[in-house]
Amino acid sequence: MNKQLVFGHQNPDTDAIVAAMAYSHLLNELGADTEAVALGTPNDETKYVLDCFNATAPRVVETVANEVKEVILVDHNEAQQSVADRDQVQVVAVVDHHRIANFETTNPLYYRAEPVGCTSTIITKLYHESNIEIPKQLAGLMLSAIISDTLLMKSPTTTDEDKAAIKELAEIAGVDANKYGLEELRAGTNVDGKSAADLIDADAKSFTLAGKNVRVAQINTVDVNDIFKRQADFETAIKTANADNGYDLFFLMVTNILNSDTEALVIGDPIAPVEAAFDQKLNAQQRLVLPGVVSRKKQVVPQLTAAFEQQ
Amino acid sequence: MNKQLVFGHQNPDTDAIVAAMAYSHLLNELGADTEAVALGTPNDETKYVLDCFNATAPRVVETVANEVKEVILVDHNEAQQSVADRDQVQVVAVVDHHRIANFETTNPLYYRAEPVGCTSTIITKLYHESNIEIPKQLAGLMLSAIISDTLLMKSPTTTDEDKAAIKELAEIAGVDANKYGLEELRAGTNVDGKSAADLIDADAKSFTLAGKNVRVAQINTVDVNDIFKRQADFETAIKTANADNGYDLFFLMVTNILNSDTEALVIGDPIAPVEAAFDQKLNAQQRLVLPGVVSRKKQVVPQLTAAFEQQ
Repeated sequence: MNKQLVFGHQNPDTDAIVAAMAYSHLLNELGADTEAVALGTPNDETKYVLDCFNATAPRVVETVANEVKEVILVDHNEAQQSVADRDQVQVVAVVDHHRIANFETTNPLYYRAEPVGCTSTIITKLYHESNIEIPKQLAGLMLSAIISDTLLMKSPTTTDEDKAAIKELAEIAGVDANKYGLEELRAGTNVDGKSAADLIDADAKSFTLAGKNVRVAQINTVDVNDIFKRQADFETAIKTANADNGYDLFFLMVTNILNSDTEALVIGDPIAPVEAAFDQKLNAQQRLVLPGVVSRKKQVVPQLTAAFEQQ
Repeated sequence: MNKQLVFGHQNPDTDAIVAAMAYSHLLNELGADTEAVALGTPNDETKYVLDCFNATAPRVVETVANEVKEVILVDHNEAQQSVADRDQVQVVAVVDHHRIANFETTNPLYYRAEPVGCTSTIITKLYHESNIEIPKQLAGLMLSAIISDTLLMKSPTTTDEDKAAIKELAEIAGVDANKYGLEELRAGTNVDGKSAADLIDADAKSFTLAGKNVRVAQINTVDVNDIFKRQADFETAIKTANADNGYDLFFLMVTNILNSDTEALVIGDPIAPVEAAFDQKLNAQQRLVLPGVVSRKKQVVPQLTAAFEQQ
């Protein structure tokens, strides 16, 4: 059997990195020859998670066709979020919890998507279906991924299956999910010493909406004002990012993980569908105030998609 | 919970009809409110199968948005093989065993594809995963679908999982899979009294290959000459179909189910990539001779796709 690489999306978050490690381990236990790799280095939260459970970050790759003929995607499927040379390899399997778009294959494949809060929740089920035990270290990592994606079960993306997986994985890992979870999320909110350019790129995804190239980034914080006191820096960084990468529109979510509210800074064109999507005009600071919004996938992208398509 | 319709592809074959019935039953057992429908009437083979197990064909629909907001697809995903008004409803789940193409959603969904021979094999697994018993009647129907799609395990699409499902379902249904299977396949080969136009449309799918609209149809037979003694009729029917539906190219597979060989009649443009795909020129009858070829999905469409993309 040929070796296969397993990886999550660009700008990897904890789930993108952990899901690749967990799925690769499962496949290898079942007799495959896979290696988990990553399309970027771990962010602060993921570093904290890897340290906590004494795990090593996967090797970072920029291309894959130079190494393998077949790849396996986790936590994403859209081409623009994936490896640059994906059209030169065959995608043989996908495990994901996002919408499907910009994804096409020549051959039948294994595709497992479920509308749950985290890829690692699906992978927990796959271990059960295959009767493979989840090692203690991986259980801690997978627990961390679900805490990250569901903001400790506060995100509306959280399902009963995510809650059940958190309970089970916390028991295997031997940690208190609530206590550990808050420490993990706080570890991801440290912005000191980081440039605005780095912060807007750390957790960002691109979407093609009615032909427009839309970038949606998210910064988690325990104090929204702590971010927006540097708004001028962020505006400059976003305008540079738009110009350099051809983004038509940049939508920066600044999310308070303690009270689950978001303020979004919006720069680019067109603004009208953005205002229509959230039924409010941008305020004087070019921001939208979005109480209760924490999920890009469930509370931002579908709303933007619908509004852009109605233009 | 809102009612959801479950259906297979246009020009339904046995799996398209049975998988919808089987998945709908499973979902309803799990508490959903679904109805299996079909995008066409049963073919001769499917009629034989339904008669054998005293089952009623699902209701035929032409549109769905007039009835429901949400739908579930089985045995297909590509838009041009699905219901005409699919863009007006939300696809909340897919169970399929084909490549993924021309498929895009706004929201996360349940998507279960596996590279096995038949959708009903995957649905057999879903019953197990949900701990729901497969009723005797449905077992007979699902067995028939797997026999149909795998040509009684002779197709190269057949996997160990298909074989295991056939064994299990035959036991539940109380039939001899090999004896019953040959009768079932023979029931689908009766061409007496059928027009060439009907025969080329009975099991046909459209594909967009490098911008060309390619129709690939398949007729199963126990005697290839029995079909080609009417070649002039087929040529006329195909030219009419191409003109009426905007097909650039029509690829008609005539497959001998007893010895697993195919001859293909090819009419339209461009011919060069078709000849490149199978490394032979069309013969004087505009046919390709394809020994050992029985699977459109595995032995025809990927080869055509690759050749068209290299044009």
